[in-house]
Amino acid sequence: MRENPEHGKKNYETFGVMERGMTMVIDKGLGRNMFSDVIETASDYIDCLKFGFGTAPLYQTEILLYKINLAKQYGITVMPGGTLLETAVQQDVVSSFFNTISRLGFNSIEVSDGTIEMSRKKRTELIREGKQRGLRVFTEFGKKQSGSFIDAEKLAYTMDADLEAGAEFITVEARESGIGVGIFDKDGECREEMIDNIIQTVPDARKLLWEAPLKQQQAMLLRKFGSNVHLGNIQPTEVLALETMRRGLRQDTFELGVKEPSADDFCYII
Amino acid sequence: MRENPEHGKKNYETFGVMERGMTMVIDKGLGRNMFSDVIETASDYIDCLKFGFGTAPLYQTEILLYKINLAKQYGITVMPGGTLLETAVQQDVVSSFFNTISRLGFNSIEVSDGTIEMSRKKRTELIREGKQRGLRVFTEFGKKQSGSFIDAEKLAYTMDADLEAGAEFITVEARESGIGVGIFDKDGECREEMIDNIIQTVPDARKLLWEAPLKQQQAMLLRKFGSNVHLGNIQPTEVLALETMRRGLRQDTFELGVKEPSADDFCYII
Amino acid sequence: MRENPEHGKKNYETFGVMERGMTMVIDKGLGRNMFSDVIETASDYIDCLKFGFGTAPLYQTEILLYKINLAKQYGITVMPGGTLLETAVQQDVVSSFFNTISRLGFNSIEVSDGTIEMSRKKRTELIREGKQRGLRVFTEFGKKQSGSFIDAEKLAYTMDADLEAGAEFITVEARESGIGVGIFDKDGECREEMIDNIIQTVPDARKLLWEAPLKQQQAMLLRKFGSNVHLGNIQPTEVLALETMRRGLRQDTFELGVKEPSADDFCYII
Repeated sequence: MRENPEHGKKNYETFGVMERGMTMVIDKGLGRNMFSDVIETASDYIDCLKFGFGTAPLYQTEILLYKINLAKQYGITVMPGGTLLETAVQQDVVSSFFNTISRLGFNSIEVSDGTIEMSRKKRTELIREGKQRGLRVFTEFGKKQSGSFIDAEKLAYTMDADLEAGAEFITVEARESGIGVGIFDKDGECREEMIDNIIQTVPDARKLLWEAPLKQQQAMLLRKFGSNVHLGNIQPTEVLALETMRRGLRQDTFELGVKEPSADDFCYII
Repeated sequence: MRENPEHGKKNYETFGVMERGMTMVIDKGLGRNMFSDVIETASDYIDCLKFGFGTAPLYQTEILLYKINLAKQYGITVMPGGTLLETAVQQDVVSSFFNTISRLGFNSIEVSDGTIEMSRKKRTELIREGKQRGLRVFTEFGKKQSGSFIDAEKLAYTMDADLEAGAEFITVEARESGIGVGIFDKDGECREEMIDNIIQTVPDARKLLWEAPLKQQQAMLLRKFGSNVHLGNIQPTEVLALETMRRGLRQDTFELGVKEPSADDFCYII
Repeated sequence: MRENPEHGKKNYETFGVMERGMTMVIDKGLGRNMFSDVIETASDYIDCLKFGFGTAPLYQTEILLYKINLAKQYGITVMPGGTLLETAVQQDVVSSFFNTISRLGFNSIEVSDGTIEMSRKKRTELIREGKQRGLRVFTEFGKKQSGSFIDAEKLAYTMDADLEAGAEFITVEARESGIGVGIFDKDGECREEMIDNIIQTVPDARKLLWEAPLKQQQAMLLRKFGSNVHLGNIQPTEVLALETMRRGLRQDTFELGVKEPSADDFCYII
């Protein structure tokens, strides 16, 4: 995914057979200066960047192309938010949607039903259409409505079918807020028994990407699964802070430990 | 207000006789790069920009002028925070205040009494002084002190007098935090019965601009009044996210629906 | 510390024998554009900038040097986060740590034991090592673990020994969140009786720097101690907003009053 995959995360220990943890960032409308800051400073620590919800159509095309191209130059996968595809489904313009995002250069999609109802058949069609067009496909499980939590059995069933249809990862919904939805309660705390239930039920926990916008959520998932858990809906300004937690360079995950010396500055620490 | 009022929001349906919803942004100290990002990315979605509280005098003049001029080039109305005028009133230097902000290029003021006590006579004088100097005048109703809520009768009376004196809009105070003040309780939730009471009591609800810094507040007001409600104290980084809600491109306001096709990219969605 | 110490804060009244309040900013990973914005806009109001927790090693060296040098040009003291030194202590590579940060141009350190246990002897050694290398030394008191509060007697004892060893200021731990740690309860509110106890117990309250990331905490400490209290872990985007509170240009601290006229724009207000 990145130009130099050896740089930055090369020292991660494997967690089970996971090679290293993905970080998916949610972008709610960064302009060029901020966006190039994020790329220059943190591209080594970002795998995937989502243009949150329906923001993509609100940019001038020139800026949108600038952002998509810059991210891709640094090996970052770019996708529009799942809500945008849901809107296209509802308006019955799915084919136009795929044409437009492909023309703009997006190389990934999120197939979700957080807002609308969608049949299994439609979901499978969307995944396959994405794959046929050469896009990486992430699917999302969970409703966005407040109070919606995760049913492990249904997640397992959906995950099986999504992977079979061609999806790479299944994202566990937590919205941009991380409050009162999915695996998080109304204070944003993790419902750990729900997580335990999920990982005992799903076919392959390594294919789950946990949306975890709040720091305490990231820390809890890192302590539970280790440095290489896949995390999503990370704020652009929090990528380095998250990476310190992945590396045990912050109190919250200090127990994860830091890695062996290398030849660079701060070599003894990273 | 904007150079091309047809661009961006052209497809909004009218809400009552409102033509489209204003978005007022609060700027707490952006530098040039971030500010030009906001303008380049979101100027189509910003009507008014407030230099929050007393920040305006803390800039070097060169940067302040850069920001004011750039915003005005894109048709955005610029005002200093109401607290600054209150300070001037308290120090009895109102005339200097008007001279300074006019010289700097501000083209609007906010007349408020969120912090100090102010007589009706003084309030009317300030509104008239602003109008005479060619400034747009927004007034604000409500105290900033924690626990201060909105008295609909007093708001209606003040609004009548403010509009009569020359004010264009009356802002309903919620501070920058949106917590425990105005129409929001200590958890930031809307007191809906207070809002209902307000709109039944005031002379013209379309002249109200609701400060709503938190997303759930914006979503609630959009669901209640429709896409074209006037919203204020929006964070600069949240303008596109708010606009997705105005357009039904986010779960929270999906029910508002999206607009008809046009000839642009993503045409079928916006 | 700053190039022109007379500019910006020249009008502060003294609080006791304090000359003016220090503002210490925590940087969690700003890129060049945002960083230069902060410096250009707010350098007059920043005394010290901390590269939070273990973020420093995550930058490309070129960007790290750019940031360190730019801050120093504007008279701002720069330090890596205390957790990074704690990591070095735990890995027994303290000498390399000092070599590296000196080579990079940091001119200050934070000696803390928020995460690891550290003997008094070790703490004194680190302070002395910093001083011998020509660095300013800030120490920190308090554990980062949730629920850890401040024992005034232990703080007083530590402060005595730290100042004796060469530390300039003692920082009171509140983490980046300001929630449920140090002098703040689980809602982020100040435990005022704990503060009262601290200032009655410590040898010199003017040498305390209070980490206060949340606005209500800053406002409370400003109301309690006056404009010149030393505050830390301020977000880069909040520096101007904090400065309005130091100057009584925001409702929260309006009672502090504003300063006399000068010859500049807005002269009558600042």
